[in-house]
Formats: sequence, C-alpha cells, structure tokens
Amino acid sequence: MSKTVLVLGGDGFCGWPTSLHLSAKGYHVVIVDNFVRRRIAEDLGAPSLTPIANIDKRLDSWKKVSGHDIDVVELDVAQNYTELRRLLATVKPDAIVHFAEQRAAPYSMRDAARKTYTVDNNINGTHNVLAAIAELRLDTHLVHLGTMGVYGYDGDGLEIPEGYLDVTVEGPDGTRYPRSILYPTKPGSIYHLTKSMDQLMFQFYARNDGLKITDLHQGIVWGTQTEETRLDPALINRFDYDGDYGTVLNRFLMQAAAGHPLTVHGTGGQTRAFINIQDTVRCIALALGSPPASGDAVRIINQVAETHRVRDLARLVAELTGAEIDFVDNPRVEAAENDLAVSNATFKNLGLQPIMLRDALLTETVDIALRFLDRANLATVPATALWKGPVQGDDPLLVASRVAAE
Amino acid sequence: MSKTVLVLGGDGFCGWPTSLHLSAKGYHVVIVDNFVRRRIAEDLGAPSLTPIANIDKRLDSWKKVSGHDIDVVELDVAQNYTELRRLLATVKPDAIVHFAEQRAAPYSMRDAARKTYTVDNNINGTHNVLAAIAELRLDTHLVHLGTMGVYGYDGDGLEIPEGYLDVTVEGPDGTRYPRSILYPTKPGSIYHLTKSMDQLMFQFYARNDGLKITDLHQGIVWGTQTEETRLDPALINRFDYDGDYGTVLNRFLMQAAAGHPLTVHGTGGQTRAFINIQDTVRCIALALGSPPASGDAVRIINQVAETHRVRDLARLVAELTGAEIDFVDNPRVEAAENDLAVSNATFKNLGLQPIMLRDALLTETVDIALRFLDRANLATVPATALWKGPVQGDDPLLVASRVAAE
Repeated sequence: MSKTVLVLGGDGFCGWPTSLHLSAKGYHVVIVDNFVRRRIAEDLGAPSLTPIANIDKRLDSWKKVSGHDIDVVELDVAQNYTELRRLLATVKPDAIVHFAEQRAAPYSMRDAARKTYTVDNNINGTHNVLAAIAELRLDTHLVHLGTMGVYGYDGDGLEIPEGYLDVTVEGPDGTRYPRSILYPTKPGSIYHLTKSMDQLMFQFYARNDGLKITDLHQGIVWGTQTEETRLDPALINRFDYDGDYGTVLNRFLMQAAAGHPLTVHGTGGQTRAFINIQDTVRCIALALGSPPASGDAVRIINQVAETHRVRDLARLVAELTGAEIDFVDNPRVEAAENDLAVSNATFKNLGLQPIMLRDALLTETVDIALRFLDRANLATVPATALWKGPVQGDDPLLVASRVAAE
Repeated sequence: MSKTVLVLGGDGFCGWPTSLHLSAKGYHVVIVDNFVRRRIAEDLGAPSLTPIANIDKRLDSWKKVSGHDIDVVELDVAQNYTELRRLLATVKPDAIVHFAEQRAAPYSMRDAARKTYTVDNNINGTHNVLAAIAELRLDTHLVHLGTMGVYGYDGDGLEIPEGYLDVTVEGPDGTRYPRSILYPTKPGSIYHLTKSMDQLMFQFYARNDGLKITDLHQGIVWGTQTEETRLDPALINRFDYDGDYGTVLNRFLMQAAAGHPLTVHGTGGQTRAFINIQDTVRCIALALGSPPASGDAVRIINQVAETHRVRDLARLVAELTGAEIDFVDNPRVEAAENDLAVSNATFKNLGLQPIMLRDALLTETVDIALRFLDRANLATVPATALWKGPVQGDDPLLVASRVAAE
C-alpha cells in the first residue's frame, strides 16, 4: 500500500511542485491549503506572472497526465485545530510536509497587521500540527520547511553546520565544558523570527513526545518549473516578482526581461544561499525516505546548493541579458556585506547533485520571464516594506537610507 | 508628573501586588486584564484559598488606604491588537509590566486544548505588545516576566549566567572564535516553551526597532502577602494550591495544614530556584528604575533568591509542621536529580536583600494555610496533568510511572 503524505500549503510555490513530485513517486498525496496565498497576491495587485490554474483544474490535469489522484482539503491549520485533528485521525498520514506558513520577509515587515498575522498564522499553524500528532500519538514524520535566514547573516565566516553548533563553555576554574546546542538564531525579519521560534517547538515536541521531525533550512528558491509541472500548461507553477513575495533573482529576471536596470539594495554585498525548485522537491523526497527515529532530537538539514553575493547575482543576470545595474538604498536592517559558508553535507551524502544558477538561469529567463512578460505589472517590483516604520514627519526614503547606513 | 505604568495581568498573583507596590511608589498604574485567571480557577474547581475581592472592590479599598487611584481596563491583549494599540496611543506609558501570560506548566500540559491556548495566548499577547510599541514608536520600557525554567534543569552544574552565555566555537584550523549568545533554552513544558520563544521576540524587537526590554527570569514565587496587600482584607492576594496553579511549596503547606503527608514527585531531587512575592515586587520596581537604553540588546536579569531541592523543601516544611513525606511517581518528563546554580548578581548589586524561605515559611503557614484551611478543597492538590498523553488503553497511572522512570 502506498504511503500517505499530507502537504500543508500544497497549492503554493514550493507546495504544489512538491505535491506533484511525491505523487509521481507513488505517495498518496493529500493537499491541505486555505488558498490564502492567492488572496494575498490579489490584495497586493501582484498575481503570479505565470497563469496558474485553480486547484480543481490543476488536479484534473495531473490525473490526466499521470493517472494519479491527489486529494485536496480546504482548511486553515492555524485557525482550526479541531478540523485538523479530525483530518489527521482519519488519514493517519505517514508523513506531513508543512509549507503552511506566511513565507515572505518583506510582507512580514510591511506593517503591524502583517506582523501580527505572520506570527499568529505561523506559530499557531506549526503548533497545531505538533499538538495534533502528539495528541493522536501518530507515528507521522513531520517535514517542515525552515530557512537559512534563521542562522543570521552576520557570522564570523565559519561554515554554518546543520542546525546544531558544538561550543565550549569555560568554567570558573578554566575547565572547558563541551555542549552541542541548537544553532543560536539571529532572525532578520518577523518571518525569519517565526521560523526561529518553530525550531524551539520542534526541539520540545521531539524531546517530550518523541515526535519524528525534520526541519529543512532552505536557501532562497529560484526557478519555476519542475519535471512534473512541465507536463501540462495547467500544471505550471507560480512565479512571483513583486517586492513582497518575489525573491531577488526573480525581480532581476523581470527587470532584465523588461529592459529595466537591475535594482540592487545597498552595496549588494549581502551573501545568500540558493537552491533550484527542482532540487527543493528532490530534497523533500530524500528527507521523507530517511525519517529520524522517535526519540531523536529534531533533525535539521540545510537545503542549499550554492551561495552568491547579491551584486554577483546581478552581474550574472546582466551578463546573460545585457541589463544595467542600479544601486539603491536598502530598507532592511542588515549587514551591508557578509560572508556565508554553509554545510550541505547531508543532502550531498544522500546523492543530491544540485542544479547550479550559472547553468540554468538563461532557460529560466526565456521560458518564464520573457514568455510571460506581457502579463507583468512592473510597478510591483520595488520592495516597499520598511524594516523600521517611518518616523513621524520623515520622508520614508530618508528613513530607508538611514536604516541602510546602520 | 508621575510616570505611568501599564500592568498587563494586573489582577493576577504577581500582577496585583506589583500594581499596589508601584502605586505606593508614586507611579500612575493602569491595570490591564481580561480576568481569565479567575475563570480558569472556577473551571478547575480550584478558587483561591484566600478570599480575593473583585477588582472594583480591590481598587476602592486601595484608594481608601493609600489615597492613590489605580485605573483598570478590561482587555485581552492577545486577541485585540486594535484596542491594545489604541490604549497605548492614548496612555503613552513610560513602562509596561507584562504578566499577561498563562503561567502554569501543568495546566499547559493538561491536553491539546490547553496547549494550543497557552501558545496562542502567550505568543500573540507578547507579540502584540511589541508590535504596538514599535508601530507607535513609543519610548516605553517593557518589563516582562520570564522564568528560570527556560534555562532547563539538566545542565552540567555550571552557574547559570543572566540570559547570555559566553562560548567559543572552534574553527577547522583550531582557531577559537568567541561568541556571546542568548542562553540556549531547554523548556520542560509548553508554558516554558512560550517563554523561550518570547526571548527570541525580545531579541528581534530590541535589535530591529530599538525597543527597551527587560526580561526577568523568575524563580518559583512563594508567599502570598506584601506590605501593601496586608493593609486591608480586601487587598489580600490570591493563594493557589491546586495541582495546576499551585506551586510545590503551596501544595506542601496545604497538605501540612490539613495533616496530610507532603507529596513529593519522583525522588524530590529536582532543584529549583525560589523568590518571595515581596521580593518579586521589589525587583520589578528596581528594574523599572534602571531601564536599558534604546539600541541595547534585551536585558535579562535572574529574579531569584535561593535554590533548593524539592525533597529538602519538603523536609523543611515537615520540620516546621510535623508533617510526613510521601514519595509518588513523577508525571513530568524531567531529570530525576539535577544541580542548579544561578547568578543573581544584578539584583544583588541593585541592593536586594532577599527574604529567605527558612526565615518566613512559618508565618506563611500560620497566616495563610492554617487561617483559611476551612475554605480548602484538598481534592485539587494532586497534579493530574500527564506530560505525555495516556497511551490508548493504558492506565494513566502506569503511564505516569513509565514517564517518571525515563
């Protein structure tokens, strides 16, 4: 009998291709989603560049091309513990892949309403899932999508290990005590903060209730299509390029496609980790295939292929497309320049051979950004969220510039 | 002009005597409370041993004995951001003392409903306060009541510093990199988990928004009355002795007063930190008097007078009262025996001379436990929350015994 996986947030940018990939691999997939991502995109006036079908059309098309059924349940896991519990009691899933969190850092910093929404949704959603598995005493493996951002971006250049850090504490007599600790987080936004808080909940439920949990600390995901989403136009994945949900790379691609200069915030010296969406879905399948044991501490794996400075990324896109580069003020409270070295030993050992930006970026530009350029609303590209609210009477741009200089 | 302090949870066990103490010290106090603690006590069939007056009676009596007005606002800070923001915008408090969290570890472990309630209430409440101060750009000093429990109780015997730990990380070439990190938490219950998560929110808002925050990591509070609550019978503070909200010492005192044996869970080798309620209110006044600067990291102070093993505490009570001691299974997932050394340098340096258990315990027994014994419902004394839910078909007591043996 095939194994059952719930994909929470299975209609979203990572959740949808993951659902298809796991279905193709023979899992019985149940998508659980409240479809809030589509509503937020409408509210922001920033729908997906790619024309995404509604969930019924998506699932019908998948059935046609693959022969597989994917079930769907409309449910807000953060707001409805009772229904979530009932669903888990009925389905008794072998695994849950949990994407059901508000996942945009700029959106989480827009204003107090978005801050409180992000905290409420992400923390209660994650905790409800944990509490339900514990209450029902299920043997379910929970795979959660975390972020590289919890590690912070102002380290001392040492390679970031996978979730845990070996340190020594010196006693009063000079004796050195070794300890292995959860990597101390330094989140740069409310969104990243919630992922840091998630980590503590995972530590607790793994320890107290023996839950089997894998937390994937993912880099910035780029790319749009996977093997499965390419099988039919109705399966196409979403592509966001707005200042809230679009990642730096997608915004560069849109600017390049439109013949605009690429907008780099600050010096562009920020180093970030990246992974292609195809590798995201592969990594999740690998993680599902090797669950931790009950009683283990939460397993943390870095889901990362490579690191780049933002300005080098801009140069790469410029090189491929002939675009100019424009340096503007940085609204974020973050280090202007940082080094970032990160271990991805676990997935390398499990056989991952990642797709690299340099090899696949041109395809992405042609297949997505240029192909759908006429659907784009370029006014949404600039990031508008200020990491600190404007001082009364101040020009927001002056504040942004002051913040960037800190 | 006197300074204004909001006391969130100002009707509760610590909040009420704090409100009176700050009022006596000349602060303009505004109590903000949703009175949920009184409703939970009713639901549990475990009202305060002491006959506590309603809030109007309390405030009238305080006005009569002191001449001071205390204002009160009924508000759920976790559920109503808009009203909280409006209140802060109107009052522009110099400081906020934040007790408005569900504060019982056993209650937080009772069942899924109480777990999700504790997370939802504590995280959203604390975050709403932070988001509102940040949105309004107030210069308010936030003083939050944390707990010693976030440090965990299975350390290596090194003295626990105040919130931050100096560690070294060894690089691949043997170079040692020093780092000062938030003390890695190891919470033992959902309640303690929320306080660990609070700490990350404080770190973020201090860093991103320049908020001035003091987090007081408090030991187990014992005692009932303070200088101010003793001034009139209608000012008396609450005394909880039930298995959910009663601390270990209060339950010993009630058992002793009733002539029952003192119930010690496990070996009683658990070491915990203690502080008297009178010192709680003094410490909060001291913390308010010396706020951190904007731009400082969250300031963490250990609010602790002494540490004792639970069995030594039982022996002390037995010695004073002639009670027997009864060892029973431990429902908690925790180390059977632990050492605990903890720094309280900050408050010592600020002049605190704490009240010690050995000197004041007899008064507490006579003034509270014996005096109100006829009001007691001793059936509520045993702790009933199991740290792990019962296995289907298992006798809960067998589960408790298995858990205790782990």
